[in-house]
Amino acid sequence: MAHDADLAAQQQRWERETLDPTLSKMPERQDTFITQSSVPINRLYTPLDVPEQDYLRDLGFPGEYPFTRGIHATGQRGKLWTMRMFAGFGTAEETNARYKYLLEQGNMGLSVAFDLATLMGYDTDQPEALGEFGKCGVAISSLKDMELLFDGIPLGDVSTSMTINSPAAIIWAFYIAAAEKQGVPMAKLRGTLQNDILKEYIAQKEFIFPPEPSMRLVVDTIEFGTKYMPLWNTISISGYHIREAGSTAVQELAFTLADGLEYVRWGVKRGLNVDEFAPRLSFFFNVHNDFFEEIAKLRAARRIWARELRETFGAKDPRSWLMRFHCQTAGVSLTAQQPENNLIRVAIQALAAVLGGTQSLHTNSMDEALALPSEHAVTLALRTQQIIAHETGVVNTIDPLGGSYFVEALTDQTEKAVYDYFRRIDQLGGVLPAIEAGFLQTEIADASYRHQLEMDSKQRVVVGVNEYDNAEPVGIPILAMDPNGYERQCARLAQLRLERDNDKVGQALDALRQACAGTENVMPYLLDAARAYATLGEIVEVMRKEFGIYREPIHI
Amino acid sequence: MAHDADLAAQQQRWERETLDPTLSKMPERQDTFITQSSVPINRLYTPLDVPEQDYLRDLGFPGEYPFTRGIHATGQRGKLWTMRMFAGFGTAEETNARYKYLLEQGNMGLSVAFDLATLMGYDTDQPEALGEFGKCGVAISSLKDMELLFDGIPLGDVSTSMTINSPAAIIWAFYIAAAEKQGVPMAKLRGTLQNDILKEYIAQKEFIFPPEPSMRLVVDTIEFGTKYMPLWNTISISGYHIREAGSTAVQELAFTLADGLEYVRWGVKRGLNVDEFAPRLSFFFNVHNDFFEEIAKLRAARRIWARELRETFGAKDPRSWLMRFHCQTAGVSLTAQQPENNLIRVAIQALAAVLGGTQSLHTNSMDEALALPSEHAVTLALRTQQIIAHETGVVNTIDPLGGSYFVEALTDQTEKAVYDYFRRIDQLGGVLPAIEAGFLQTEIADASYRHQLEMDSKQRVVVGVNEYDNAEPVGIPILAMDPNGYERQCARLAQLRLERDNDKVGQALDALRQACAGTENVMPYLLDAARAYATLGEIVEVMRKEFGIYREPIHI
Repeated sequence: MAHDADLAAQQQRWERETLDPTLSKMPERQDTFITQSSVPINRLYTPLDVPEQDYLRDLGFPGEYPFTRGIHATGQRGKLWTMRMFAGFGTAEETNARYKYLLEQGNMGLSVAFDLATLMGYDTDQPEALGEFGKCGVAISSLKDMELLFDGIPLGDVSTSMTINSPAAIIWAFYIAAAEKQGVPMAKLRGTLQNDILKEYIAQKEFIFPPEPSMRLVVDTIEFGTKYMPLWNTISISGYHIREAGSTAVQELAFTLADGLEYVRWGVKRGLNVDEFAPRLSFFFNVHNDFFEEIAKLRAARRIWARELRETFGAKDPRSWLMRFHCQTAGVSLTAQQPENNLIRVAIQALAAVLGGTQSLHTNSMDEALALPSEHAVTLALRTQQIIAHETGVVNTIDPLGGSYFVEALTDQTEKAVYDYFRRIDQLGGVLPAIEAGFLQTEIADASYRHQLEMDSKQRVVVGVNEYDNAEPVGIPILAMDPNGYERQCARLAQLRLERDNDKVGQALDALRQACAGTENVMPYLLDAARAYATLGEIVEVMRKEFGIYREPIHI
Repeated sequence: MAHDADLAAQQQRWERETLDPTLSKMPERQDTFITQSSVPINRLYTPLDVPEQDYLRDLGFPGEYPFTRGIHATGQRGKLWTMRMFAGFGTAEETNARYKYLLEQGNMGLSVAFDLATLMGYDTDQPEALGEFGKCGVAISSLKDMELLFDGIPLGDVSTSMTINSPAAIIWAFYIAAAEKQGVPMAKLRGTLQNDILKEYIAQKEFIFPPEPSMRLVVDTIEFGTKYMPLWNTISISGYHIREAGSTAVQELAFTLADGLEYVRWGVKRGLNVDEFAPRLSFFFNVHNDFFEEIAKLRAARRIWARELRETFGAKDPRSWLMRFHCQTAGVSLTAQQPENNLIRVAIQALAAVLGGTQSLHTNSMDEALALPSEHAVTLALRTQQIIAHETGVVNTIDPLGGSYFVEALTDQTEKAVYDYFRRIDQLGGVLPAIEAGFLQTEIADASYRHQLEMDSKQRVVVGVNEYDNAEPVGIPILAMDPNGYERQCARLAQLRLERDNDKVGQALDALRQACAGTENVMPYLLDAARAYATLGEIVEVMRKEFGIYREPIHI
């Protein structure tokens, strides 16, 4: 303590001397220096910035509570993160070829991007789907498409992540049924369903049903997974889209954790033991430009989740406490101008994800602000991860930034700011009322607006956009999709409807309707419908009738 | 201390439990994890790894002794590092156009790459220069070429670094004379002469004269600069080429610092006051792949230099203690395979340089393993620096890694290893005897050999080289140089020899010869020869006769 007093005196002297304009040869360039999320940062961090930190209580050891330094005792020395490239476009056949290519290039896990029609629960040949086919992902209208999507890819050997939310349970049923056709029982399937409807209401806005039945569907999948699919992550609670909508890092973390805790609450309310299902909850974060802000966010995330699960929910199993997450580099940070600059951005974002201890990572392709990733661009994005893993040495030790005055102070500060949001959400009555009141949405919109003002005034420089622009035309090749994909997919659907046993489809849909109307778990009924080749659109139509649809309230 | 004992007990428990093969679910992938320089790294670093660190003594404040955390009190908040792209190819005209382009793109400082003939002291039209024209840099055979090189670039406004060693004094004279022609007095010139002959004997091997007269030339330039050019860095003591020759990070640092201290010794021996010339010594380091090893190296470098200058040489002026350095990303890390992967490597290396507190940075272009940088490739390399400066937030605070258990431990460990080398060099009688004995060269060769074995056994993976190779052909455009450059340069030289006042040239060369034979400072005579348009080859010829040439002893 005597030592700290000495340091404090010395630091005050240093601050005084160096900020004295008559002494300082190099005045600071700006009045304040802020993060990507507009958080002001100090010129220097010293032991005085983490005065109350207690190593054993606040950091601990990797693989042990509170998991600040990571969830595995051997870190990346034991197992590298899963390089998991998010991919999907056009038809199931085209995407299947891309998956095979990616696996050959060293991609370790699959990650399915669905097109907007599929995300909204429409078959490709429905009028609502028109113009959206295959654009932001692959079109999957039935088990048939799912079979083609994984043709020749043994589903017992890969892990598959699926970015699908409102119709998540249906798509999951397609996947389980496709695995059955390959002879792989559901208990052996490894993967992740995004299945995070709360963030849809908050940010991504791809919802179909109102919150109550949507939450019931989520809990149905949690319950089903808990019973029958012990290796499957039933939700990927996602901050990614909250961040992409313009939130700050703290908002991303606070709202995502609040959503996660809400799912836990609903699971407990269903009568599940928290230690039965919490270990299969997973998370998904954005890694944005600000290197240290992102690392601090990920370290704080683990500590908060561990504490809440242990202290608030009384979970006893350490596997319930530990937060596992996937990261994706920030799509919104990519620029259409000078697209190869995106390789630089993505490399540094990916490094932050790894230093933050991610379990799984997607690196964006440089051309994603222009088109779907070309094979060349996606290969470079994967190479980025491989270079970090094999050449930079950052996997040699666990949590290499642990102890950094700045990183520890920023981790603590992030944690405090998250708890501030928790309090404000609690004051509004919880996550669902806060969403209904538009609180989360307004907070994000405000942050996004502030960011735009900072861009406009050039307080924030984006290379190639508001500075360092040059007239050089975009010189990278863009993905060309099968021009007949839409016709082929519609023809396939028409043929499916002719060839399948339509009585069986009708029976399965009727049974599903009854399950939706009651309180039974819908998953077995969805599986039967999937096996009968009922289409996504048909199934959603049944559910929409039972559950109703959601329209966002208008907040002024 | 009670707390440390508790931590030690807990850490032992953790190590025991997690490394017990019956308990550990994820055993480590390798027996040891090593840095780029083959230094073994621990699984975890905690406060126990920096038990003796004293904040005020070992880290201190930026801008204050021992400068571990940086040399400026305001860090990059005060002034960004100088983005200084090393460039030169073909004729002076072509390179001049490249400099103007780079300045337009936001490059802040010039850095001249000379061709091999120039580096070895030959005019382009000498038979010894045949086949080397313009390949690895620009050909500068006389003041005439230097004038063209900077045509339209006001030398009073830019800072210029020149990578030239054995003939450094001559090229400097050309530069000073070219500035005079622009009306800029030498006292106003800002820039850096590499002028580091010791590392030529150790690693780069571009020497002409023996060590004694070479060192005299270096001291002549130091003395001249001290008297007349207060803004000029008279040497850039360079680890870069030592590293490129295959050394470890520790060897790079140890040998470079030993060279630096040797120059100081020679300056003092000449009768200069250390505080007169030490502030204008500068350094040049490689930033290689291993992210934290490089950052630790740069932090250790500042602390060692400060201590040696203050304690060993008794320097009183803080400006003598502080080590200023330029960094360049590791050329040897670039691969000809999948050249865009180099963008990723360079981005992460550049980030390490910035986090290590560099004053100036060159980022390699992705195509440098294939050709001289194209305009497109060099622009991307510069954009890499701009993205780090403006988008990643790492310039918001000084030494963000300060306090990290790992980084601090690695900094300390690097420092100790450097002092070990100092002792071994001292035991051999100092730097020059150690070079004569081949000690430094053998140490580097051994490290290089070990690295190659690690590559061959795939203990070390290089993406796209010994793993993740694909057959995709190189798809990037390569620089095309003026096919008539060589003829134009030879014609220019012939015309110069016709048009200049050859009597004046003869007189200047005679005066230079006498100065070389005596002990006078040669710089004024080199300047007179430059002003008279004596060529590089003519001047070197005079000096070679007086000084002799160096042939490397053979070490078996």
